[in-house]
Amino acid sequence: MSFFRWDLFFKVGAIMLLTAETSLLMYLYSKSRRRRGKAGVLSNTPVFHKVLFFPDKQIPCQKYLLSPKGCTRTKCFYSHDETSSFLQLIRHVLKSQRSIDLCIFSITCNELAHAVLLKYRQGAKVRVITDTEYMNLNGSKIPDFMTEGISVRHDRSSYLMHHKFLILDGNVVVTGSFNWTQSAVIGNNENVLVTNHADVVQPYLDEFDKLWAKFDVEKRG
Amino acid sequence: MSFFRWDLFFKVGAIMLLTAETSLLMYLYSKSRRRRGKAGVLSNTPVFHKVLFFPDKQIPCQKYLLSPKGCTRTKCFYSHDETSSFLQLIRHVLKSQRSIDLCIFSITCNELAHAVLLKYRQGAKVRVITDTEYMNLNGSKIPDFMTEGISVRHDRSSYLMHHKFLILDGNVVVTGSFNWTQSAVIGNNENVLVTNHADVVQPYLDEFDKLWAKFDVEKRG
Repeated sequence: MSFFRWDLFFKVGAIMLLTAETSLLMYLYSKSRRRRGKAGVLSNTPVFHKVLFFPDKQIPCQKYLLSPKGCTRTKCFYSHDETSSFLQLIRHVLKSQRSIDLCIFSITCNELAHAVLLKYRQGAKVRVITDTEYMNLNGSKIPDFMTEGISVRHDRSSYLMHHKFLILDGNVVVTGSFNWTQSAVIGNNENVLVTNHADVVQPYLDEFDKLWAKFDVEKRG
Repeated sequence: MSFFRWDLFFKVGAIMLLTAETSLLMYLYSKSRRRRGKAGVLSNTPVFHKVLFFPDKQIPCQKYLLSPKGCTRTKCFYSHDETSSFLQLIRHVLKSQRSIDLCIFSITCNELAHAVLLKYRQGAKVRVITDTEYMNLNGSKIPDFMTEGISVRHDRSSYLMHHKFLILDGNVVVTGSFNWTQSAVIGNNENVLVTNHADVVQPYLDEFDKLWAKFDVEKRG
């Protein structure tokens, strides 16, 4: 018979192992909660990434998209296809509730401008940053935004304010090569990435605020 | 004294709890491995998202970046700053080992073109898709690529091949508003998103292959 208390050794060992595993599980649980919280900027939003490619095959139907009654034509030649890139893009804009921060080089697309105006009239806070030269070109929708009362700031430098991104409700970023023009929808090869991942959203939020302050004419006097 | 065997009850209870916690930990571990596996397209790559904004404050030093000896000037006026957006961007290109799929509207930037040529000479498979009109403009680096033997296909349509993305080693996507031009580096406001998330990389891989086949002149006859 041994002097070593094997029964005590196993009991203490089991208690230590139980304590260690319980602590590890509690740590993993709290870490997963933190990660979920960080996922979107909003804590209860599951993370998503969506990539859209252009051109679409067909011009989107403006009535279907934006008229309160929808499209009432018996035969419509324009797209009602919810899987098309344009309809998916505009659905993201229309889904926003509180704010739209738009940082865009060129905007001449009727439907997208209309969607922003619609959200603005419904009470969303809209801020637009754009390029001085391009905002004054024929077909630009920036004058319509300004007439309506939307805050617009613009880059007066000789370089381009070449961004094409927007932030919806402070927690979804839309970025890519896509200017808001008609030819970008049905002609050009373009890509748009939509994501709510915090590691992407936060830098864009910071950059928007930085540029918003930078292009503030009143402050610059 | 009770008939109930409390000591046995606690022993069995402790063993059951230990078994349950161990199983849970093993399950969580295997799940985390699966998640990591899905992350990049390469199974052992941790997921990352990096956002870069331009303009940089200073012109990058080409010698520091691309010369085998680095920059040997005693006083260099160009940027050696590894935290600058341009240096971070070019580091991603230089890190690639096997392949560069470049889908770009305009490329006139010496350093980026040089980095691609360097990787090509080191054995990386390089494919370039671009726009017919822009590839023939003054300063375009596409003729250099073609002279060197890099496969280039281009969009002959009247619309723009307006993409500005590249895929490195089939598992990292770089996309945004940033054309590969000098003014995009030190003048324009631009954004670049670098990510290896499979939900982003896979669609770009598919789109590149689709466009590569579409712009194949030989097949179209």
